[in-house]
Amino acid sequence: MSGPVDLVEVWRGDILESVHQGHAVVCGPDGEVIEAWGDAEAVIFPRSSCKMIQALPLIESGAADAHGLGVAQLALSCASHQGAHIHTDRVQVWLDTLGLSDSDFRCGPQWPGDIPARNEIIRAHAAPYQIHNNCSGKHAGFLTLNRHLGGAADYELLDHPVQQAGKAAFEDVTGETSPGYGIDGCSAPNFATSVHGLARAMSFFATAHDRSDARSKAAVRLRDAMTAFPELVAGETRACTDLMRAMDGRVAIKTGAEAVFVAIIPEKRMGVALKITDGSTRASEAAIAAILVKLGVLDADHPATKARMVPEIRNWRGTLCGHIKPVAALL
Amino acid sequence: MSGPVDLVEVWRGDILESVHQGHAVVCGPDGEVIEAWGDAEAVIFPRSSCKMIQALPLIESGAADAHGLGVAQLALSCASHQGAHIHTDRVQVWLDTLGLSDSDFRCGPQWPGDIPARNEIIRAHAAPYQIHNNCSGKHAGFLTLNRHLGGAADYELLDHPVQQAGKAAFEDVTGETSPGYGIDGCSAPNFATSVHGLARAMSFFATAHDRSDARSKAAVRLRDAMTAFPELVAGETRACTDLMRAMDGRVAIKTGAEAVFVAIIPEKRMGVALKITDGSTRASEAAIAAILVKLGVLDADHPATKARMVPEIRNWRGTLCGHIKPVAALL
Repeated sequence: MSGPVDLVEVWRGDILESVHQGHAVVCGPDGEVIEAWGDAEAVIFPRSSCKMIQALPLIESGAADAHGLGVAQLALSCASHQGAHIHTDRVQVWLDTLGLSDSDFRCGPQWPGDIPARNEIIRAHAAPYQIHNNCSGKHAGFLTLNRHLGGAADYELLDHPVQQAGKAAFEDVTGETSPGYGIDGCSAPNFATSVHGLARAMSFFATAHDRSDARSKAAVRLRDAMTAFPELVAGETRACTDLMRAMDGRVAIKTGAEAVFVAIIPEKRMGVALKITDGSTRASEAAIAAILVKLGVLDADHPATKARMVPEIRNWRGTLCGHIKPVAALL
Repeated sequence: MSGPVDLVEVWRGDILESVHQGHAVVCGPDGEVIEAWGDAEAVIFPRSSCKMIQALPLIESGAADAHGLGVAQLALSCASHQGAHIHTDRVQVWLDTLGLSDSDFRCGPQWPGDIPARNEIIRAHAAPYQIHNNCSGKHAGFLTLNRHLGGAADYELLDHPVQQAGKAAFEDVTGETSPGYGIDGCSAPNFATSVHGLARAMSFFATAHDRSDARSKAAVRLRDAMTAFPELVAGETRACTDLMRAMDGRVAIKTGAEAVFVAIIPEKRMGVALKITDGSTRASEAAIAAILVKLGVLDADHPATKARMVPEIRNWRGTLCGHIKPVAALL
């Protein structure tokens, strides 16, 4: 079994300052490996990169339609948003519709990544709520599914029907029995899989329009919701949003904590998954951008591409000090 | 030549989620390698870990004494502070004494890492000044040396006498001709060296009390200033401050951007330097704590040690999700 390989370099002047290793897999329509870097079978936690998988039961169960969820809400159910008003206002309306309140969440309070939203809270000498948690859209989906299933309030627990439904969907689309789970930042269980398994799941989403089963139909709606509302999946200045916009809605991508990134490419019927071994987001962003360029779905000259694939390193005075770049094997 | 080796692991539940590789060297009194992990001769940028070296000319030149600098100011000249009032108030007095103002700095404005200081600026709808830059103490030292030398205002440029004096001191104490330089976050040149060279420089500081030359005398004053004012070298909640306090002033340590860490251990007449290849601070902190415990100068059971060497990973609700730990080879 091979180990991780160098994927992204950090240069200061003409000296290599830091290096990021990892694993990446591109899967074809049947989940077969088309191209791989590092160890395709390395076990990883997908973290938030698998939110569109976790949202499958929300649609499959009939809960989404029973509660009249719109496309924006489906996008939020797959989101790691940054707590801007465009996110929290919509989640609040969703909560209100369910007749629930912030205290029904189990994701925990998190400071918004969105600077204006964060500053509002600071200026009010207040504290963030659970609705500001980057996962509050996913948890609104969990709450909706739970209402539909009539489950207990502790929907975040491993043995709860909401999470067991997520596990079943996860193992189905990854094509693997998960070797274990961890507790995620938002308190939900996160199931481990191989990088190959995660890429296989993305190719399930990428080919879902070819099939008519309930899970595949749900997959089409979720991936299309992500590309219809790229600003809801992450937010302004974020890689997921900027790169999905740069691809004009043709490709859905999603980041996960500890440097996971996935892509769903319907026009190529391909799925992509990668993990930077050390967990650095700057490297997972550069690597996914490089792979999307390599696959011909992202324009190398688009400003959003350059900003993520070969970002400049500037200091506090704005002086150019160096740059980040993918290794030749990714180009 | 060997490559980097695994130094720090990140576990979520019972699954290894991320891994950090790097190089580390412990040097004895003559700069000889006592113990090493990875490649001792790997070339790195020390970044802020070498501020005590950059401050040597400030004392050696006579500038520090001519301007009556106290021990706290010497500590600030070696600091990556977080822009709290205890830092910026002292640097402001220093600037006033020189008859200079914020615009004479060349380090650039940076938001304070200190949360109360940051929030003050946000609530005032204001912006940070250059004095908030983590390097403003070092730059106050540069300005003082420059006043003494009568140099031009652009003291941050490579060919300026202030930086050339720093380069000469750097090459002397590392025992190496620097293979090149990069522009640092604060706009000053940062000279590359091997991990061994940086550890050798730290052993120069650790043994400086044995010698009576001007450079060694300056080294004693700087390392003693760091341990006398650990809160000025970094700040509350920071690893440098917490671990120096835990060692009761017996050991000086300093972090640098992109995951460099150094230690000066006078009682052992040893110097330590390490670089995490991927640039992750969580790993450089865990690794330096482990090495200090291994060398017998840091108590493994001290709360500050545990918080840096084997930190818990807790989520937004405070649930324990995993932990970070050094590999067995560091224990």
